[in-house]
Amino acid sequence: MNTEQLKHLLESVRLGDVPVEQAVESLRHLPFQDIGCARVDHHRELRQGMPEVIFGEGKKDEQIIDIMTAMAQNGSNVLVTRVDREKAQRIQRTFFGALYHEDARCLTLEQGPAATKGKGVILVVSAGTADLPVAAEALVTARFLGNETEHIYDVGVAGIHRLLALRTELVAASVIIVVAGMEGALPSVVGGLVDRPVIAVPTSIGYGAAFGGIAALLGMLNSCAAGVTVVNIDNGFGAASAASLINRM
Amino acid sequence: MNTEQLKHLLESVRLGDVPVEQAVESLRHLPFQDIGCARVDHHRELRQGMPEVIFGEGKKDEQIIDIMTAMAQNGSNVLVTRVDREKAQRIQRTFFGALYHEDARCLTLEQGPAATKGKGVILVVSAGTADLPVAAEALVTARFLGNETEHIYDVGVAGIHRLLALRTELVAASVIIVVAGMEGALPSVVGGLVDRPVIAVPTSIGYGAAFGGIAALLGMLNSCAAGVTVVNIDNGFGAASAASLINRM
Amino acid sequence: MNTEQLKHLLESVRLGDVPVEQAVESLRHLPFQDIGCARVDHHRELRQGMPEVIFGEGKKDEQIIDIMTAMAQNGSNVLVTRVDREKAQRIQRTFFGALYHEDARCLTLEQGPAATKGKGVILVVSAGTADLPVAAEALVTARFLGNETEHIYDVGVAGIHRLLALRTELVAASVIIVVAGMEGALPSVVGGLVDRPVIAVPTSIGYGAAFGGIAALLGMLNSCAAGVTVVNIDNGFGAASAASLINRM
Amino acid sequence: MNTEQLKHLLESVRLGDVPVEQAVESLRHLPFQDIGCARVDHHRELRQGMPEVIFGEGKKDEQIIDIMTAMAQNGSNVLVTRVDREKAQRIQRTFFGALYHEDARCLTLEQGPAATKGKGVILVVSAGTADLPVAAEALVTARFLGNETEHIYDVGVAGIHRLLALRTELVAASVIIVVAGMEGALPSVVGGLVDRPVIAVPTSIGYGAAFGGIAALLGMLNSCAAGVTVVNIDNGFGAASAASLINRM
Amino acid sequence: MNTEQLKHLLESVRLGDVPVEQAVESLRHLPFQDIGCARVDHHRELRQGMPEVIFGEGKKDEQIIDIMTAMAQNGSNVLVTRVDREKAQRIQRTFFGALYHEDARCLTLEQGPAATKGKGVILVVSAGTADLPVAAEALVTARFLGNETEHIYDVGVAGIHRLLALRTELVAASVIIVVAGMEGALPSVVGGLVDRPVIAVPTSIGYGAAFGGIAALLGMLNSCAAGVTVVNIDNGFGAASAASLINRM
Amino acid sequence: MNTEQLKHLLESVRLGDVPVEQAVESLRHLPFQDIGCARVDHHRELRQGMPEVIFGEGKKDEQIIDIMTAMAQNGSNVLVTRVDREKAQRIQRTFFGALYHEDARCLTLEQGPAATKGKGVILVVSAGTADLPVAAEALVTARFLGNETEHIYDVGVAGIHRLLALRTELVAASVIIVVAGMEGALPSVVGGLVDRPVIAVPTSIGYGAAFGGIAALLGMLNSCAAGVTVVNIDNGFGAASAASLINRM
Amino acid sequence: MNTEQLKHLLESVRLGDVPVEQAVESLRHLPFQDIGCARVDHHRELRQGMPEVIFGEGKKDEQIIDIMTAMAQNGSNVLVTRVDREKAQRIQRTFFGALYHEDARCLTLEQGPAATKGKGVILVVSAGTADLPVAAEALVTARFLGNETEHIYDVGVAGIHRLLALRTELVAASVIIVVAGMEGALPSVVGGLVDRPVIAVPTSIGYGAAFGGIAALLGMLNSCAAGVTVVNIDNGFGAASAASLINRM
Amino acid sequence: MNTEQLKHLLESVRLGDVPVEQAVESLRHLPFQDIGCARVDHHRELRQGMPEVIFGEGKKDEQIIDIMTAMAQNGSNVLVTRVDREKAQRIQRTFFGALYHEDARCLTLEQGPAATKGKGVILVVSAGTADLPVAAEALVTARFLGNETEHIYDVGVAGIHRLLALRTELVAASVIIVVAGMEGALPSVVGGLVDRPVIAVPTSIGYGAAFGGIAALLGMLNSCAAGVTVVNIDNGFGAASAASLINRM
Repeated sequence: MNTEQLKHLLESVRLGDVPVEQAVESLRHLPFQDIGCARVDHHRELRQGMPEVIFGEGKKDEQIIDIMTAMAQNGSNVLVTRVDREKAQRIQRTFFGALYHEDARCLTLEQGPAATKGKGVILVVSAGTADLPVAAEALVTARFLGNETEHIYDVGVAGIHRLLALRTELVAASVIIVVAGMEGALPSVVGGLVDRPVIAVPTSIGYGAAFGGIAALLGMLNSCAAGVTVVNIDNGFGAASAASLINRM
Repeated sequence: MNTEQLKHLLESVRLGDVPVEQAVESLRHLPFQDIGCARVDHHRELRQGMPEVIFGEGKKDEQIIDIMTAMAQNGSNVLVTRVDREKAQRIQRTFFGALYHEDARCLTLEQGPAATKGKGVILVVSAGTADLPVAAEALVTARFLGNETEHIYDVGVAGIHRLLALRTELVAASVIIVVAGMEGALPSVVGGLVDRPVIAVPTSIGYGAAFGGIAALLGMLNSCAAGVTVVNIDNGFGAASAASLINRM
Repeated sequence: MNTEQLKHLLESVRLGDVPVEQAVESLRHLPFQDIGCARVDHHRELRQGMPEVIFGEGKKDEQIIDIMTAMAQNGSNVLVTRVDREKAQRIQRTFFGALYHEDARCLTLEQGPAATKGKGVILVVSAGTADLPVAAEALVTARFLGNETEHIYDVGVAGIHRLLALRTELVAASVIIVVAGMEGALPSVVGGLVDRPVIAVPTSIGYGAAFGGIAALLGMLNSCAAGVTVVNIDNGFGAASAASLINRM
Repeated sequence: MNTEQLKHLLESVRLGDVPVEQAVESLRHLPFQDIGCARVDHHRELRQGMPEVIFGEGKKDEQIIDIMTAMAQNGSNVLVTRVDREKAQRIQRTFFGALYHEDARCLTLEQGPAATKGKGVILVVSAGTADLPVAAEALVTARFLGNETEHIYDVGVAGIHRLLALRTELVAASVIIVVAGMEGALPSVVGGLVDRPVIAVPTSIGYGAAFGGIAALLGMLNSCAAGVTVVNIDNGFGAASAASLINRM
Repeated sequence: MNTEQLKHLLESVRLGDVPVEQAVESLRHLPFQDIGCARVDHHRELRQGMPEVIFGEGKKDEQIIDIMTAMAQNGSNVLVTRVDREKAQRIQRTFFGALYHEDARCLTLEQGPAATKGKGVILVVSAGTADLPVAAEALVTARFLGNETEHIYDVGVAGIHRLLALRTELVAASVIIVVAGMEGALPSVVGGLVDRPVIAVPTSIGYGAAFGGIAALLGMLNSCAAGVTVVNIDNGFGAASAASLINRM
Repeated sequence: MNTEQLKHLLESVRLGDVPVEQAVESLRHLPFQDIGCARVDHHRELRQGMPEVIFGEGKKDEQIIDIMTAMAQNGSNVLVTRVDREKAQRIQRTFFGALYHEDARCLTLEQGPAATKGKGVILVVSAGTADLPVAAEALVTARFLGNETEHIYDVGVAGIHRLLALRTELVAASVIIVVAGMEGALPSVVGGLVDRPVIAVPTSIGYGAAFGGIAALLGMLNSCAAGVTVVNIDNGFGAASAASLINRM
Repeated sequence: MNTEQLKHLLESVRLGDVPVEQAVESLRHLPFQDIGCARVDHHRELRQGMPEVIFGEGKKDEQIIDIMTAMAQNGSNVLVTRVDREKAQRIQRTFFGALYHEDARCLTLEQGPAATKGKGVILVVSAGTADLPVAAEALVTARFLGNETEHIYDVGVAGIHRLLALRTELVAASVIIVVAGMEGALPSVVGGLVDRPVIAVPTSIGYGAAFGGIAALLGMLNSCAAGVTVVNIDNGFGAASAASLINRM
Repeated sequence: MNTEQLKHLLESVRLGDVPVEQAVESLRHLPFQDIGCARVDHHRELRQGMPEVIFGEGKKDEQIIDIMTAMAQNGSNVLVTRVDREKAQRIQRTFFGALYHEDARCLTLEQGPAATKGKGVILVVSAGTADLPVAAEALVTARFLGNETEHIYDVGVAGIHRLLALRTELVAASVIIVVAGMEGALPSVVGGLVDRPVIAVPTSIGYGAAFGGIAALLGMLNSCAAGVTVVNIDNGFGAASAASLINRM
C-alpha cells in the first residue's frame, strides 16, 4: 500500500463510501501479514525505503521459507542474513533462484532491481583477514540495497603506510564502513583522513581481553575522530543499511 | 594550506626552486602548530571539512585560551564543548565575542559563517526533560557546523502517541539524532518510522541498573531498526558532527 | 497437610493426647519427603497455592523420575521445565500420560484440573520469531496453573503499527507477559498502552552487545513505563508463575 | 478526554459534522500539552489508570513547577519523586498545599481522592534500617495511588525468626513489596511463605562487592521462589506502581 | 624432611661437619622434586599439614601420572580433582588401587590413614539437586583429609521449613560448608542459625542473570550473617581444605 | 532468653500451666525487640555466640542511639562499625563510656568482659600502609569478641623477605586474617607458609584497574593456596567475626 | 627496501632522474604486497626489526599458505601462531621444511638465521602445569626472533620456596617473562627479586571467578612491583616480541 | 647492605666468629626497618636497582614524613607520587630541599645523583592535552631514576600527520612510553613505526563508554602491534620504572 492509496481510502471514509469499520480493517490488516509464526511487515519498504530483511539465526528452515514466500509473493526482493551453508542449501531447494554468499553467510533472492539506487560508492575497509566475513556481510547488503561498493582489506593500524597508500580510494568514497576487531583503532585513523561519514563495525575477532568484540566496540565508541558512528559487534548488515540510507541523500 | 598550495609546493621541489629540506619543513610545520601544550590541527578543516573542536573537560583555562588564540588567528570559528559557566566566563574575558550556551555547556566564537552549509534539516529528538543538555550540545554543534536544526522533546516511548503525533516533523528531516537515557528505546521506534539515517545518543540519565548510560547504550546498539548507528554516552557533539557530514551529501 | 489438620494436631498436644516429641516429628517430617536426592516440598501447594515445579536442567533422568513419582503419588500435577526431547522421551517411558511440549521444552503430567482457576486472560506478547520458545514456556506454565491464555507474536517496536493494530487484545487482558530480546524495548511501549500489570521477560536472543540477554534485561529494568516488573533472562516459567498469582486476585 | 468523548468525536466525523482535519487536530493535541520543556501526558490517566508522575532528579525547579502547574490545572493529583528537602521547599512556595515526605524524598499535591481505590493491603517488607528510604518511597507512592499499606521493617534473613514471627501479617497482604540490599535474599524467603505476588526492590545499600545494588539485583532475578518479579535498584516508586495495578484486580 | 631433620642439618653447619655449599644444596633440592613437567612440593605436608593435591583440569594423562608417581613413592596419599571418567579410567590402569568418585569427579589413592584427624564433624549443606557435584567434591576432599562428614541436601530458602526442621543437625556440626547456586542466599540463613564457622561455596548453577555463579558469589560475599567466608565458584575442594584446617583446632 | 528458660516454658505448656496462646506470644516477642526503626535481635547471642553488631553507615544518629540503648539495657556489649569521628562524638554525648577507635572507625561500649574467650591468637597481616584502616577494623572487632590479637603490617609480596623474616609470628597464630589491596597476592603466599586457616580481606586500595577492590577480590578467590577463604571488600569486621568463631573451637 | 635505497630514490627525484609520479608509485607499492586476501607487510622488518608474524586463528588454510608463500619468496623466515595440529599438517604438505611445535601450537619456516641476535637470555617462568602451552608459545617465538632462552616451570606462589631456590637463574636473565593464571601473583614476587624488566602474561587457566584470565590480568596490572608490564591474556607471542626488542638493546 | 657485606657475614658464621643467632638477627633486621607504620625496604635498591618509591595516595602526612626520614637517613633519594599541592607543602616544611612537581603531582628529595644512569633517551608520547599529568608523572619518574627524557604531546591518531611528522624523534628513542586515553589507539600506531620497546599507559581520560580508562586499557592490551606492553590505568610511574630498567641494558 502506497501513499496515494492511503489518501484515497481516507477520502472514501469522509464521503461515506467506505464505512468506518471497513476502513479500520483495511488499515489494520494491510501493512503486515500474519503467517502463523511471524507478521511480515510489507509496510516497511514504504516507511523505511528498504524491504524487511530476515535475520536467519535462531529461525527454523520452515519459518524462513514461510517468511520468504510471503515476501516473494508480494514482489519484494529478499535478503536472509546469518544462514550457514547447510540451512541455505535446504532453503534453495524451495527457492531455486536464491543465491548463497558463503563468506557473508547471506542468501539473496532478487526478483528485480533494488527500488532505490545509491548515489555514490560505499567503501568497506577491513582491518585483518579474520574480519573478512563481517566485511562481506556489509558488502552483500549494500549491493542488495542498490549501491555500488568497493573493498579495501588488511590495512591494520600497525602498518599505517598500507592505509595511507590508499588515500585516494578513501577520499573517493561516499560513505565508509570500517570493520575491525582487536583494539578497533582503524575508524579513528580513517575518520581523521576523510570528510565523509564513517560507520564503524567492531568484530568479535581477537582473544583474551578482546572479550568477543567489547574492546573494539569501546575503542570505536571512544573514537577521537568526529563523525564516526558505531553499530553492534559483527553487525555488517546494520552498517550497510545505515550507509545505504546515507548514500541516497 | 589548501590543495592548490600543496601542488604548487611539490612542483617547486621538482623544478629545484625549493630545496628538499625546506619543503620537508613546510610540510612538517604548516598543517599543525605547536603552541607548547598542544598541536593545533589547522589541517583538519581541509581534511575533514570541519574545524578542530576543543573538548573543554580536563583542560585548564590557559590551555583553552591558547588553543582558541591559535585557531582564531588562523581565521577559524571556534567551538569549545564541556565548559561550565565559571570557566566560560573566565574565557570570555579574553574573547569578548565568544557566546556561552548554558544548556549545552558550549562556548562558540564565530568570526564568519560556517565554511559549508548543510542541505536539509537536522532534527534532534529527545526522550525526557533530563536529556535536554545532551540534546542542546547536539543542536549547538549542528548549527555551528552550518546546519538548520529542529528539536522535538519529551517524547518517551511509554507515551507513544506523543511521538506518533509528530510524524510529519520526523519525515521532513534530513538526518535524525535521537537522544535518550534509561532503556534507550526511542531510536528503534523512530528508526522504524522513517527512511532517514538515525544517529542514537545514549545519555547517562537514569539510576540503578541504568549504570550511567550503559543500559541505553546497549539498547541502542541492539536496536532492531536497521539504519540506526550509535555514538558514545552523552556525546551530543559527536552525533552532530556525523549528522553534519551526512547532511552535506 | 492442610490448615485444619494443623489446628487439630496442636489441640491434641494441649490435651496431652499427643506427646510433644511425637508432634514435633509429625510437623518435621510431613511437609516434605526425603527421597534420597531431594526433599519434595508437598507443603508448597498449601503455602504458595501452586505445586512445586521441577527445573529439569542439570538433573539426571532418575532424579527427575524420583521426584515426579513422589509428587504423582501425592496426587499432584507435575510440570518439568527445561527438558530436551531425548530426556523427555526417556521419562515418558515411565510416565505414559506425560505430555511433551516441544517448543516450550516442558513436560506435563496432569492427573486432574489445576487446583485454582485464574480469573482473566494472561496475554503473552513476544517480539521476534526467535523469542517464541520462551513465550511457549510461559504459555505452557500459565495453562498448567489454571489460566486462560492468548498469544501475540512478532510485534517488535521497529514496526510499531503491528502492535498498535492489536490494541484491543492488549486492553482485554488481565495480566500481560512481554517477551523480548535485543534492546528489550517492547515492555515500555506495551506498558504505556494499558492499565494492567506487565511482566517483562528478557531473552538471550541477539548477538554482540546483546551479551546473552543483558541488554534486554537492563532495558526492561530501566523501563520508563510504570508498572513493569522483570524476571530473569529466558525465565518464561517465572513470569507465568507471577502472572498466575496475580490472575487469581 | 475520556472514552465517551472519543466515541462522540469519531461519530461526528462519520456524520460530517466535524471535518477530517479538525478531528485530527483534536486527537493530536488533546492528549498531551506542550509546555515548552515537556509534553504533559494528560492522556496517561485514561490509558494507564494512574496520573503521570514527575521524576524530580535532574529537573530544575522551574521545570518541575511548570509540569505541576499543567497537571494541577487539569485537575490531577501530583506526585514528584526524588526531590531533596531544599528543592521541595522552593517548590512549596508556589504550591502551598504540597506535602513533603522527607524519608521518601517525595512531594505530593492532592486535590481530591485517588481516582481508583485498591482492594487489599499492599505490604512493604524491608530488610535493614538503611533500606527505609526506598521502602518509604514505595509506601508514599502506594498511598498516593489509592491503596491501604502496611510496613514490616528490619527483618533480614540472618535472623529468620524475626520474619517467621510476622507470618500472619505476610499472609494477610494482597501484594507484597520486598525491599532489600546486600545479598537481596529476603524476597526468596518471603516468596516461599505466601501465595501472593511478590515484587522485589534491590537497594544500593552495602559496600564492596555489593556494587551499588548489583548483588541484590542479581540475587532477586535468580530467586528460587516462583512468583517473584523485580524492579530497578532503589525503584520504590516502580514497585508501588506495579503493586497498585495488581491491587485493583 | 621434618623439623627435627632441619635442626640437625643446621647444627652440623655450625659445627663445620657440613660445608655451607652442601647444606645449601640439601635445603635447595629436598623440599621439592623436579619431574620434568612439575616440581612436586613434598614440603607442603610439613608446612601446611596436608599433602599437595593435583588439579586435574588441563593436565594430560602422563602429567598426572608422573606427579602421582612422585607423590606415591614419597609415601603420600594422593587426591586428584576435576578428572572425568575417561581420564580416571586411563590413570587407574597405572594405579590399580586408585578409587574414582564419579559424582565428585575425584580420584583418590590412599596408602594409609590421613596424617591428621579432624576433631568434629564437617557438615555440607547443599541447596538444590544440581549443586550435588560440588557438594560431593567437598565431601570427598574432607574425608580424604581425615574428617568425619555429614550431608544435608535440597534445602533451598524458598522452602525454609525444610532447613529449620534440620536445626539439630546444623547445631551439631563443627564447621559447615554451604553449597548453593542461583541467588546464593542459603549461607546467610544458615549463618544466622548457628555459632559455627560457615564456608560458602557458590555454584555455577542457574541461567541468565546467574552469570555462571556470579550472582551466587556476590550474594555470599554480601551476606548479612557475620562469620560467613567464601571460596571460588564451584570450589568444593577449597572449602573442604579450609574446613579441614579449622576442624583440627 | 537462654536454653534453660526455653525448656522450662515448653514443659509448662505440656503441664497446662501456660496456655498455648501465651506461650506463642512469649516466643514470638522475646527474642527480638521492636524499637520503631529496627528489631533488635537479643536472640543472636544465644544463637550465634556473639551479640548483634551495628553497621553504622547510612544510619542516622538517633537510630544508632536507639539500638544501642536497647542493647545496653539488655546488658550486652555494643560494637558500632563504620562511624566517622563526628557521628561518634555526637553518640558519645549519650554514652559517656563509649570508646572511639579512630583508625578502625569503630565505637565500642563494653559493660563487661566478652561472653566467650578465644583460645589462641588471631593474627592480622596487612600489605600496605593504606590497608591499615581495614586491618584496624578487624583488630578492634576481634578484641571486642574476646580474642587476643597480633598485627604484622607493610609486608607486600614485592619485598617477600619482609614477610619471610616474620615466619615465627605467622606460625604461632591460631587464625590469620590477611588484608591486602592492589593485586591481593599476599594471602596466597601466607597460605602457602602455614597450616592455619587464612581469611583474606580484599581492600579497595589501588587505582585504575584495581576497580575499587575487584582485582584484589578476584585474586583472593583464585588463590592457589588451599585453605584460604574470602570476605567482602574492606570487610575487616566480617573477617574478625569468622576468625572469632574459629578461634573458639 | 632498506634505508639506503630510500635515500637514493629521493636524491633521484631531486636530480630529475626519476619523475615525481614514478617515485610515488615505488614508494606506494613496494613496502607491501597485495595477495588478494591480505597485504603482506614486507616493510615491517625494516621498520620494526622483525618480520610480520601470521596469527593463524580464524584464517583458512589457503590464506595462510598464500601469505607464507609471499613471505618465503621475499626471503623471510615465517612464524605462524595459533595453529592446531591438523591445520599445521595440511600446511606442511606445501612447505616441507616447516616445523610444527605442538605444545606451542606454532609453525615455523626458517630459511636462514634470524636477522638480529639477542644479547642476553630471555627467561620464561611459568606458574602451573596448565600454563605450559602459553610459556611454550613465548619460548618458540623468542627463539625464532634470535634469542637464547631458559625455562623455569611450576613455581607458584603458594610454595614460594620453589621459586626462591632458583634465584640464581632469575638474576642471570636479561629479560623475564612470567606466565601465570589464577590469581596471577607470580610477577609481583619475581619483580621484587630482580632488577630486570619483567613482562607478565596472564593465562586463561582457572575456573569460576578466574573469568578466563581476567583475575590474573587484573592482578598483574595492579602489581605492587615496579617494572612489571603486561600483555593480553594468553599472549605468549606478544610477550616474546617485546622481550626480544628489549634483549637487543 | 651490599653483596660484599653479605658474603663477609656468611664467612664469619662459617669461621664461628659470628654465632648463628646473631647472623640471623642481622639478616632479619637489616634489609628493612620497622618504623611503626611501615617496613622501609632499604634492601630494594640492592635487589631491584632502584630505591623504594612512596605511593602518597591514602597515606597521612606523618606516615609519609616518617618513611621519608628513614630513607633520607639511609642516604637514599626519595620520590613520592600522588601527592596534591597542599599535602606537598606540609611535607616541605620538614624537608626544605624537597621539590614539588605540580603537573606530575610528585615530590622529589634528591641527595645525590641517581645510582644508575640510563643509556639512551626515554621518549614519552602523549595523545591529548588532558593526558599531560600522567605523562608528567612518567617524565619526573624517569628523570629521578637517572634517565634522559624527551616529550611529544598532542599527537592523537585522528590527525595522524602530526605523529608522522615526528618520526625522527620516535626512531631516535631508546624506549617509548605512550600515554593515551579514550580509544587508546596511539601505541599501536607508534609500535608499528619503530623497532623499540613501547610501553603503553592508558589514562582515565574520556567519558561515557571510556569507563574511566577501561576502553583505553583494553585497546592497548589488544594492540595489533607486536612489542607493546601495558601498565595500569594512569600509572605513569610504573611505565617509567619499567622503561628505566630497560634503558640500563
